[in-house]
Amino acid sequence: MNFEFQNPTHIIFGAGNIARLGEVVSEYGKKALVVTGGGSVKRSGAFDKVVESLKAAGIEFAECSGVEPNPRITSVARGAEIVRAEGCDVIVALGGGSVMDASKVISAAALYDGDPWDMILHGQENVYVPTEALPVITVPTLAATGSETNCGAVITNEETTVKSFIQIPLLYPKVAVMDPELTVSVPKDQTAYGVCDLITHVTESYLNGVDNTPIQDRLVEGVILTAMEWGPKAIADGSDVEARAQIQWAAAVALIGWAQIGTNAGYPVHMMEHTVSAYHDITHAAGLSIINPAWMRFAAKSNTAKFVQFAERIFGLKAKGADDLDCALEGIDRFEEFLRSIDCPTRFSELGINDELFETYAKDTLKIVNDGNGNLPGRPVLSVDDMVAIFKAAL
Amino acid sequence: MNFEFQNPTHIIFGAGNIARLGEVVSEYGKKALVVTGGGSVKRSGAFDKVVESLKAAGIEFAECSGVEPNPRITSVARGAEIVRAEGCDVIVALGGGSVMDASKVISAAALYDGDPWDMILHGQENVYVPTEALPVITVPTLAATGSETNCGAVITNEETTVKSFIQIPLLYPKVAVMDPELTVSVPKDQTAYGVCDLITHVTESYLNGVDNTPIQDRLVEGVILTAMEWGPKAIADGSDVEARAQIQWAAAVALIGWAQIGTNAGYPVHMMEHTVSAYHDITHAAGLSIINPAWMRFAAKSNTAKFVQFAERIFGLKAKGADDLDCALEGIDRFEEFLRSIDCPTRFSELGINDELFETYAKDTLKIVNDGNGNLPGRPVLSVDDMVAIFKAAL
Repeated sequence: MNFEFQNPTHIIFGAGNIARLGEVVSEYGKKALVVTGGGSVKRSGAFDKVVESLKAAGIEFAECSGVEPNPRITSVARGAEIVRAEGCDVIVALGGGSVMDASKVISAAALYDGDPWDMILHGQENVYVPTEALPVITVPTLAATGSETNCGAVITNEETTVKSFIQIPLLYPKVAVMDPELTVSVPKDQTAYGVCDLITHVTESYLNGVDNTPIQDRLVEGVILTAMEWGPKAIADGSDVEARAQIQWAAAVALIGWAQIGTNAGYPVHMMEHTVSAYHDITHAAGLSIINPAWMRFAAKSNTAKFVQFAERIFGLKAKGADDLDCALEGIDRFEEFLRSIDCPTRFSELGINDELFETYAKDTLKIVNDGNGNLPGRPVLSVDDMVAIFKAAL
Repeated sequence: MNFEFQNPTHIIFGAGNIARLGEVVSEYGKKALVVTGGGSVKRSGAFDKVVESLKAAGIEFAECSGVEPNPRITSVARGAEIVRAEGCDVIVALGGGSVMDASKVISAAALYDGDPWDMILHGQENVYVPTEALPVITVPTLAATGSETNCGAVITNEETTVKSFIQIPLLYPKVAVMDPELTVSVPKDQTAYGVCDLITHVTESYLNGVDNTPIQDRLVEGVILTAMEWGPKAIADGSDVEARAQIQWAAAVALIGWAQIGTNAGYPVHMMEHTVSAYHDITHAAGLSIINPAWMRFAAKSNTAKFVQFAERIFGLKAKGADDLDCALEGIDRFEEFLRSIDCPTRFSELGINDELFETYAKDTLKIVNDGNGNLPGRPVLSVDDMVAIFKAAL
C-alpha cells in the first residue's frame, strides 16, 4: 500500500437540511449560479426550497438550467458565461451527477479564458490543469454518482463524440448538502439506475484493484449489500425516506474515495461505457448494467479468487476453493439477476444497440485511456479484441 | 441518519515516505517544533530520518521531547513555551498517540495566553474553544490511536487527577505522513496494545450506535477482522512491513471518523478507562482490554441483536436468532480469548489494581461526561452502580 488521500468536502447529511443551504452558501459568496438539469427539480419543488433558503440568507442568484443527462461541454461554456455576465461568486449544483459534474467544470471554466474542453482529459498531450475555481456547493437530488463528494466530472464533447473526464483536487465541492427528502420524487427507473451506478463504482475498484486491501474490500461489500437491501425498498416505495437515505449515503461512500484507497484500480467498465454512451445518448447506468456482468465473466477467468470472494460475501455462496470458477460465475449470475430484478437492462439489444460499432467503441476507449502498450488498464488489461468479445457477450 | 462530516487531513501513506517529510513541512512553515516521547524514536533511527528530511528541505527545528505515555497538560504548556521562545511556525508530531495528542493541543496553546487546561473538556462550564492553531504534521510511529488523522486529543492533569479531552475541527492535522517502516521497531507488547486500542475504537461506535448504519457496520467489521488477521503477524514478526502497514491503516480508519458517521455513539469504555488510567499510570490499551469485555457482557443483555451480529460476522458463529444471548456472549468470550492470545490483560488484578476505588472511578467518569440524568452516555446508559458492576466483573 502506497497512496495519498485527501477529501476536504464538508458533508451535511439528513432530511430537512436543504433549509440550511442559504446559510452554507453565505460562507462562500454573495451571488450564486444555480445549475439545474431538465426541469425535474422545478416539478418536485426542490428548486423552490433552494430559492427560499438562498433568499432567507440574502443570497442573490442567477440560473443555468438545461444541463443534459450526459453533460456537454457547450453547457459548461454556457454556465461559465453566465457566471461572468452575472458576477456570480459561488456555484450551487442542484441535480444529479450530470448537473454536479457540469458545475464543477463551470467553476474552473469561469476563471479560464480558453476553451473549457482544454481541461478535459481526452488523449491530448497538453491538458490544461486549472489552478483556481469558484466554490461549489452540491445539492444532490438523486442517489447515484457520488459526484457530490468527489472531485471528478465526466463531460461529453458532442461535436467530436468524445466523452471523457477531469479529476483534480481543486474540484472537490466545498460542501455537499445531502437531503434525502429531495430524492423522494425520483421515478422508479432512475432510482434503479442509481443503485446500479453506485454498485458499479465499487465493483470496479474491488475487482480491478491490487491484492490485500481487506478494509476497503469490507467497505465495498457493505456498500453493495446496503444498495441491494435498501435499493429495492426505495424503488418499491419512493417516499420511504429511510431507504432513500440509505442509498444516498451508499452512493456517496461508493465514490468518495475511501473504497478506492490503495487499490490502484483501473475503471475499465466505465471507460468502455463512456465510449458507448458518447455514440448513443443512453443513461450511463444502463450502459454499465449491460457491460459490467459481461466484463465480470471475462475477468473472472484471470482473477478468480476475488470473484469467489464476491460470490461468497455478497451472495452467501460456498466455494470449493479460491480457484472455484463455477462459484465465481454463479456469483456473477446472481448479480445479473439482481440487476434484472430492478429492471435494469443487461443486453445491448434491449436498448436497440447492435454490434456495428463494437470495434469503434473499443478503439475509441483506448484513445481516452491507454496503458502505453495498447491496452485498457484493468485486471486484466484489455485489448481491442478483448473489449469486442465483452461487447459481443452483452449483445 | 442526520450528521455532518469533514476530515480535511491529507494522508501520505506507504513505506519510505518519511523522506518526503521536509518537503511537506516546507509548505506550512520555516521552523518546526519536533515533539517526541520517551526516546524510542531516537533509538529506532526515526528521529534521524526526520532531521535529515527537514534539513534537506531547509527547515529549522526545535525540540520538545519527553511527552508522557498519558500526556500531561504540563508537557503541553512546556511545548507551547518552546514554540514561542524559538519562533516555531509548524509542529511535527513524531511518536504515538500521546505525542500526537499533545502536539495538537500545543498547536493551539502556543497561540493562547491563558492556561492550556482551559481548552480541555472536564466538566467545567466555560471551556475555552480555541480559534487558531499552528499547522500540525503527524508522523505516527505506532499503529494504535488513529490520532494522526483525527482532531481529538486526550490530556491528563496530573495535579487534579483528571484525564479528559478536546475534539474540535481546528485540530485536524494538515498532513499525516504514515510510513509503516517507522513502526517495525515497536516491541511486541506495544504492538499488541495498539491492536487492542484500534479494535476498541470501533467496537465502541459499533456497539453503542443507533440502528441502521449498515455501511459503517461493515467498515468496522473490516477493521476488526483486519486487525485480528494482521495484528498477530506484526506481533510475531515486527519486521513484516506488510503486516505493519495493514494494522497502521486499520488504526487510522478506526478513528478517522468514517466508522462513526451517523452512529451518534457514546464511548463509555473509553470514558471509564480514562478515569482509571488517570489514577494508575497504566497503558491506555491495557485498561481498554480489561474494561471492554466486561462492558460488552453488561451491554449485550440490552442490545443483544448487535452483539449477535458481532459474534456472527467476526467469529462466524451461528445464532438461533437476533435475541440469542448465548451466541452474543460466546462472541464476547471469543473476543476476550483473542485479547489474551496477544497477551493483553483482561482483569484488573493482572495490573495489581483492586476494587478500592471502583466507585471513585465511576463518579469521576460522570464528572467528565454525563447525559444530564446522572448517567454515562452509551447503549445502555450507565449509572454509577452499573459502572461499578462492570469494574467488579473485570476484577
